[in-house]
Amino acid sequence: MRFENPISIEKIAAIIHAKVIGDATQLTTGINEIHRVEKGDLVFVDHPKYYETCLQSAASFIIINQEIPCPSGKALLVVEDPFGAYQKIVDHFRPLRPSLKPISDSAVIGAGTVVLPGAYIGNHVQIGKNCLIHPNVTILDHCIIGDDVIIQAGTIIGSDAFYYNKKTNRPVHYKKMKSCGRVLIENEVEIGAACTIDRGVTSDTVIGAGTKLDNQVHIGHDTVIGKNCLFAAQVAIAGAVTIEDEVILWGQVGVNKTLRIGKGATVLAQSGVPGDLPGNQIYFGTPTEIANEKKRERVWIKRIPALWDKVMRAQ
Amino acid sequence: MRFENPISIEKIAAIIHAKVIGDATQLTTGINEIHRVEKGDLVFVDHPKYYETCLQSAASFIIINQEIPCPSGKALLVVEDPFGAYQKIVDHFRPLRPSLKPISDSAVIGAGTVVLPGAYIGNHVQIGKNCLIHPNVTILDHCIIGDDVIIQAGTIIGSDAFYYNKKTNRPVHYKKMKSCGRVLIENEVEIGAACTIDRGVTSDTVIGAGTKLDNQVHIGHDTVIGKNCLFAAQVAIAGAVTIEDEVILWGQVGVNKTLRIGKGATVLAQSGVPGDLPGNQIYFGTPTEIANEKKRERVWIKRIPALWDKVMRAQ
Amino acid sequence: MRFENPISIEKIAAIIHAKVIGDATQLTTGINEIHRVEKGDLVFVDHPKYYETCLQSAASFIIINQEIPCPSGKALLVVEDPFGAYQKIVDHFRPLRPSLKPISDSAVIGAGTVVLPGAYIGNHVQIGKNCLIHPNVTILDHCIIGDDVIIQAGTIIGSDAFYYNKKTNRPVHYKKMKSCGRVLIENEVEIGAACTIDRGVTSDTVIGAGTKLDNQVHIGHDTVIGKNCLFAAQVAIAGAVTIEDEVILWGQVGVNKTLRIGKGATVLAQSGVPGDLPGNQIYFGTPTEIANEKKRERVWIKRIPALWDKVMRAQ
Repeated sequence: MRFENPISIEKIAAIIHAKVIGDATQLTTGINEIHRVEKGDLVFVDHPKYYETCLQSAASFIIINQEIPCPSGKALLVVEDPFGAYQKIVDHFRPLRPSLKPISDSAVIGAGTVVLPGAYIGNHVQIGKNCLIHPNVTILDHCIIGDDVIIQAGTIIGSDAFYYNKKTNRPVHYKKMKSCGRVLIENEVEIGAACTIDRGVTSDTVIGAGTKLDNQVHIGHDTVIGKNCLFAAQVAIAGAVTIEDEVILWGQVGVNKTLRIGKGATVLAQSGVPGDLPGNQIYFGTPTEIANEKKRERVWIKRIPALWDKVMRAQ
Repeated sequence: MRFENPISIEKIAAIIHAKVIGDATQLTTGINEIHRVEKGDLVFVDHPKYYETCLQSAASFIIINQEIPCPSGKALLVVEDPFGAYQKIVDHFRPLRPSLKPISDSAVIGAGTVVLPGAYIGNHVQIGKNCLIHPNVTILDHCIIGDDVIIQAGTIIGSDAFYYNKKTNRPVHYKKMKSCGRVLIENEVEIGAACTIDRGVTSDTVIGAGTKLDNQVHIGHDTVIGKNCLFAAQVAIAGAVTIEDEVILWGQVGVNKTLRIGKGATVLAQSGVPGDLPGNQIYFGTPTEIANEKKRERVWIKRIPALWDKVMRAQ
Repeated sequence: MRFENPISIEKIAAIIHAKVIGDATQLTTGINEIHRVEKGDLVFVDHPKYYETCLQSAASFIIINQEIPCPSGKALLVVEDPFGAYQKIVDHFRPLRPSLKPISDSAVIGAGTVVLPGAYIGNHVQIGKNCLIHPNVTILDHCIIGDDVIIQAGTIIGSDAFYYNKKTNRPVHYKKMKSCGRVLIENEVEIGAACTIDRGVTSDTVIGAGTKLDNQVHIGHDTVIGKNCLFAAQVAIAGAVTIEDEVILWGQVGVNKTLRIGKGATVLAQSGVPGDLPGNQIYFGTPTEIANEKKRERVWIKRIPALWDKVMRAQ
């Protein structure tokens, strides 16, 4: 989330009741995911295991639950519960005030764009030119749609991230992390019917120009998809994934979180992608392997009975 | 389905044109699934194979297609077609008269709850306090939603069970069993976008307090889910399943009908659960196995070529 | 797509700026898929590999990108870009002018049919008698629904085909092929919640009488499904598939494009169907095999460690 104007760390500290270590007069420009963070950004961390990653990142300001030495040029905002502090920032800068009108007065819709009945267009949504928004589509607050985009019926853009802070004191339970990121859909993207594209938690979920999604595709929060990709029906992609340009995922493929699929890779139907995949290869299986190797594996499996016979005869 | 007031068996017999064996003056409190049945309930059975189960169950009244001895304290309602009799009871006590208004006059919506445009709230729906019902959500008749529940856009609560009486006289065809059960969603449940939660056939589909569902999750009829569970995107659960507390199902997992998953079990992505799973274990595969054993199986498969070589060299 | 009235080839040639080889005075009755084509139909082809198939088909008129000899009784319409010519024909005969009213004035809705709030019924849609169209359903232009059909909430009928012309000049990108086919839903079909049924590209997607679909089922363009089939939740079927009568697909099954599944076949949950399946058999696995053989394969895999032991001891 970018703030509309840079905000002083003093003000942020007041909102979250933090003690500042470092220069409280600096300005912050937004809050961001640790893997996307830029100079001027706030991040938050509540486990010593991740302290160093945050301190060494490009982030200028770290909301943290321990007083530790602050690197020069940065500031720490020390609070007891960094997750709670994050929620306070979201509540302050992105308070939940959804439009009660089907199309919000603050939405901007470009020339030549047609919005069909039953569609909901939330606050501060921007839709470009010559788009077609089919019936019963839902586009939630702050999402940005480019030009020449087609969104088929029943699709939801900007649903909240499936992202919880697990509380392990009994009973185990989950506290919702509010999402303040957006969905950005670039030009000439086409999205099928009954798809769901979650907004980023703090960053943006992006669908690159020219990419085409079939029906019932799910895209998780903060996932960035390149240009001219093709995803068939019922593909599901978890959060914070990076998919490069011209990737093809066939039907019912599942992709685990925070991984990267390289440019031009193809994943055959029903495969499950557990980790990074280099580009320009064809993959198959759960977990995915190079498709031809996976096919050979099946041949080997079919040979087990013959192998058994040979061994038995030899005894 | 609970009746609003207890009904005499005499009246039920008149509705379904049944001959009563036993005491016709008793009162019945509702109709229920055989695995959920309580004293005072009606059940129905049309195959001798299941007669004993019904007669031995807690049910007080059995709609049956044969005159057999009646256990004391119970009553049999003998009809030619028990499934048809069931439909008559549903038509009588839950006639289909859907609200033609987006929000039914008989719906009760708690203080602080926000219902966004395009949502449909059916007859006798109850929604608790401080809920957020996103755009284009559908909540059908008689469903009950607790407090602090979030239902994201496009989700359907209370769709009919996928439950048919198979007619094997040619051509094979299917007769819809009307659903008269409800969906009960407890407090602090969060349901993602484009999910579908079927109502029970005669009992209730239940989502326990604190449970969180990601997008495009499907929950079948009469399934009971415990507290503080976490189901990722595109999970599908068939009918009459019991899932205990704190179960985690990762993306695209499928769960077969009428089974039980024990407390604290985790099922890894894309797995298919064919039968009961004890709790506090991690499972993987279709059909599911203990995840570590399934991983070792892959190692063994990769050794087949080496094994083949050894056997060939030995010959 | 059937034309409302037969059209002279001369007129078609004028619309697409084609040179006619053969008799320009003949009449064409429609445009169709190559595997469904009838006398009087137009087809289009842009690759010499498929020329013969088109010329030998029942089609009377072939839009083609090369001047070649024309079989007698047919006509060729020669253009530089047959795909572009196809788009011009669709734009001319099925221009995109979606209804801006929730229920189009040109829709015809039969007696006894109930349409609930939030449903969108497009231009020239026909719905038969005694149907129930649940809230937030979308039925797009030209789709035809029979009698006694139930369509549950949030389902989309007539979404566009996921069908693109791949352009391999860098960067690889995709040009949408406009869909001018329809969806035909026969009598007594029941479709679950949040399903998506794509229209045909040029032909019709058909759901045969008595077939029942569970929730979140996806049916691709030009797919023809027989009578009294049963598809469980999250089944996905690609384009131009033929499924005969009384086929059962259990949950999360995926079916590849342009194949045929024979009458009475059953495919067990989570299987992936890569090619034709003969009828009256039970299948399992990705790729599918006869279910019992697939089960035996698992037994063999579990024997690998024992086999390894035997071989090691023998050395």
